[in-house]
Amino acid sequence: MNTLLLALAGKTYPIVVGNNFVYRKDTWAVLEPGTPIVVITQASIAELYLPVLRAALSDFELLPILIPEGEANKNLTTVTKIIEQLVQREIPRTSKLIAMGGGIVGDITGFVASIYQRGVAFIQIPTTLLAQVDASVGGKTGINFGAAKNILGTFYQPERVLIDAAFLSSLPMREYTAGLAEVMKYGLILDANLLQELLLQSAALKARDETVLIDLIYRCCALKVGIVAEDEQDHHRRMILNFGHTFAHALEAYYAYARFLHGEAVALGMLLALKLGAALGFSANQAVYPGVRNWLQVQGLPVDLPADVNALELINLMQLDKKKAGTNLRFIILEDIGRAKIVSSISALMLESVLKEPL
Amino acid sequence: MNTLLLALAGKTYPIVVGNNFVYRKDTWAVLEPGTPIVVITQASIAELYLPVLRAALSDFELLPILIPEGEANKNLTTVTKIIEQLVQREIPRTSKLIAMGGGIVGDITGFVASIYQRGVAFIQIPTTLLAQVDASVGGKTGINFGAAKNILGTFYQPERVLIDAAFLSSLPMREYTAGLAEVMKYGLILDANLLQELLLQSAALKARDETVLIDLIYRCCALKVGIVAEDEQDHHRRMILNFGHTFAHALEAYYAYARFLHGEAVALGMLLALKLGAALGFSANQAVYPGVRNWLQVQGLPVDLPADVNALELINLMQLDKKKAGTNLRFIILEDIGRAKIVSSISALMLESVLKEPL
Repeated sequence: MNTLLLALAGKTYPIVVGNNFVYRKDTWAVLEPGTPIVVITQASIAELYLPVLRAALSDFELLPILIPEGEANKNLTTVTKIIEQLVQREIPRTSKLIAMGGGIVGDITGFVASIYQRGVAFIQIPTTLLAQVDASVGGKTGINFGAAKNILGTFYQPERVLIDAAFLSSLPMREYTAGLAEVMKYGLILDANLLQELLLQSAALKARDETVLIDLIYRCCALKVGIVAEDEQDHHRRMILNFGHTFAHALEAYYAYARFLHGEAVALGMLLALKLGAALGFSANQAVYPGVRNWLQVQGLPVDLPADVNALELINLMQLDKKKAGTNLRFIILEDIGRAKIVSSISALMLESVLKEPL
Repeated sequence: MNTLLLALAGKTYPIVVGNNFVYRKDTWAVLEPGTPIVVITQASIAELYLPVLRAALSDFELLPILIPEGEANKNLTTVTKIIEQLVQREIPRTSKLIAMGGGIVGDITGFVASIYQRGVAFIQIPTTLLAQVDASVGGKTGINFGAAKNILGTFYQPERVLIDAAFLSSLPMREYTAGLAEVMKYGLILDANLLQELLLQSAALKARDETVLIDLIYRCCALKVGIVAEDEQDHHRRMILNFGHTFAHALEAYYAYARFLHGEAVALGMLLALKLGAALGFSANQAVYPGVRNWLQVQGLPVDLPADVNALELINLMQLDKKKAGTNLRFIILEDIGRAKIVSSISALMLESVLKEPL
């Protein structure tokens, strides 16, 4: 069990990474006995893990709230239903909310925690690899409104993050693999040694080796902690975490969020970002490309754009998205392995040529 | 025109107090021309002031959104309607929201600003005396959920606060007078000189003398700025701003928010808090009581509890309210004139005797 500290202006909180510790009573001994605890989770996760969590939390007043699965339910209706229960049960400001689940559960719970009684404490227990290495750390909360993704949300930090690799044992293979794309991202943009190791550990990762995974999760979180501490509200340096994501978001939207998991779209987006970096003359992109593509493919991630994709429509989607945000079209590219920067003067012509070249 | 700066960890913002300046073009010259601006207000205010504001903002893209009047509409339905328009018009993250109205408009607009796109800038233009001396400064936002008052909300600071006394000319007498109760509060808890001056200026205030008012608003805001800078999130010192408010909230709820305006309930609550301070042996309370009661009465504020009020039911309401918040029953009392403190060990018996004594 290893602990990272994320130090921000208003608040410092621990991120604990380990194996089989969330269900130990002593993990919860930091909380005052009797504290009301609300566990927000989904039926599939509750079925497997709520009984053991309940046992570990036997010294507390526990209220579980189940929310429906799926990105389509990450909306104000689900938030309202949670709030209804909190108000009805008179859950006080001194209570703690626990998000036990993947990114959707974390995003919703964090949002509710940030607005209930002007903010109550919440604890992240991410259960997917993607949430463990990315979404659970850094305090971004969000819900969708109609077709507008994450258009409502807050920056609101959890009180602690408990990352337990034991949850990964029940994670479907496709979701696990999607999480690996974000792990690769950290290597590419921030840590050449990590990248090297990922390439070497390809087989162990494919086999979901727990020891290797825990070490990697910890290192990814450590990298994210450094970035968020520097730029909590995503104005400058934190943006490099969007490496591959401008392409990925457009691909997800293009297929109405039905074809690619987020991590899968990120895999393709990173390959496109490497191509773009190469086109801009940063030679590290070409050097690293074949190894990265091969690694993604071995893990089971997509490495070719679907044949039916229309480059111009993708570019339109990217521009539309940025127009709504009131920002210019920005890309994160690699200057070197482990070093990323923001560029904002990419012509549509260059984008088109990158998108039309085979990956 | 005078400017105060509220300096917080993450952010410093100006509070400008003056007369007839909101509708001058140069007031808005700090914003980049073309910035999308969303003015959230109510029909009665829009009718009087939107045309002149529109003229002053002719260099910007303006979208006015009218919300319904009344505390009953300070809820998620109104918030959802605002968000719908922001999403539909693709209002970008770089836009500014303006709250032009009383406390309700400010509370809702601040809440929307805090959750739209993880936070957009907003500007407070308070149009009531109560909002000018209290609600518009300090970043508390909030909406009701069913019967639960302000149960949803955030701490989210505006980008600037523009307090223009010109708005007061159209404020109904009863609302103006209610605002004076909060002005008196600042004198009692924080500034013996201010209190002295209020007592002396009773006639000028009754006559709504603008010069006197602007000076008083500025001084109240300066006092609030000092408190909020010390304790933004209301954990310690900021609580003294609740002087009289534990009683006031119970009185408002007792009459289902239909009998007393907030300021009127605060007037009664302050008299009760002075009685409580006296009962606890702080002699300043007795000394100041007759002058304060007389002043409140001259201004037209209630100074006697309604004959039908039931002391035990009021005490129940207070306890219920605090139980929901997960806190003990706390009162703010005066140790001396201009100096307040929190006490949390008041017996129900003492409360009952304070509530049953005539004011």
